[in-house]
Amino acid sequence: MTFEEKTISSETIYEGKILTLRKDLVEVKDGGTSYREIIEHSGGVAVAAVTEDNKMYLVRQYRKAAEQDVLEIPAGRREHDEDPLVAAMRELREETGFTARKISHLSSFYATIGYCTEVIHVYMATGLTPGETDFDEHEAIELECYSVEELKQMVFDGEIIDGKTITAILLVAAKLGL
Amino acid sequence: MTFEEKTISSETIYEGKILTLRKDLVEVKDGGTSYREIIEHSGGVAVAAVTEDNKMYLVRQYRKAAEQDVLEIPAGRREHDEDPLVAAMRELREETGFTARKISHLSSFYATIGYCTEVIHVYMATGLTPGETDFDEHEAIELECYSVEELKQMVFDGEIIDGKTITAILLVAAKLGL
Repeated sequence: MTFEEKTISSETIYEGKILTLRKDLVEVKDGGTSYREIIEHSGGVAVAAVTEDNKMYLVRQYRKAAEQDVLEIPAGRREHDEDPLVAAMRELREETGFTARKISHLSSFYATIGYCTEVIHVYMATGLTPGETDFDEHEAIELECYSVEELKQMVFDGEIIDGKTITAILLVAAKLGL
Repeated sequence: MTFEEKTISSETIYEGKILTLRKDLVEVKDGGTSYREIIEHSGGVAVAAVTEDNKMYLVRQYRKAAEQDVLEIPAGRREHDEDPLVAAMRELREETGFTARKISHLSSFYATIGYCTEVIHVYMATGLTPGETDFDEHEAIELECYSVEELKQMVFDGEIIDGKTITAILLVAAKLGL
């Protein structure tokens, strides 16, 4: 244990649709106090949908935070108290139409641990069966398919700019020995 | 190109020490409008400090957002307009004392692309020379050293919970063929 920053007081600054911003006054090591700006988020889920011949389905969509189209694995927000696995299967079906016969947990991690509570849960889905997509309101999504080897090269070439997608590609490649 | 969400109006809700929160009204595909909550952040840098015998130095510190001690590669915030490479070398020295003879870019990615502008730039530092640490005010940091193979196993076992650290470990392992 290094030093637990106990909360002295906490102020909610903004409660939005997808996030809450709070400011905590905390105890710090030298006996003083400091402020911590914290974004509260219910968590994300993401799915590496892998075919029998080691290809992966990704989605391309406009991301306002990046002000550009971004290639990502299917992903979405976990509803409060929702099982991440259930959320992952829902997002996969909504964004790609696929249902999976098998889904296994790859990794769960804090996306940006300095100031945000969001944990992203990444799964690998196999035994894919195509079906109807069901985009959320206003989503404009294109489906693309690449081999895991291609995707790994795209990571090294800087062509994948989404963190959870890079992590998923590298985990899948390591699992498959590619 | 899928559909560019042009900004109709933008409202700054909070300007803090490390982040700014704004709410954009944007055009969406069906001709309607929608709100996007966006966290503005100047960016992060992180360094995989790799020894000649394929070990990596990590730091353990309390993270308020996770309410626990977290094992991470040395990292910090990029000052506005600061070269990420300069920031990375500064954070490495401050948190571990090491200077590096060689530092190379591994990856740059959006940490949580749905609502945050933060790009994390990850570097690999080699040719390490020990020196004095210089922690930021109130930082309580412990230095630990593991082999890349151990770290890769810790990723698969769910013992590493920080996204950028998982990415860095997998990238270094892939680069070194481990």
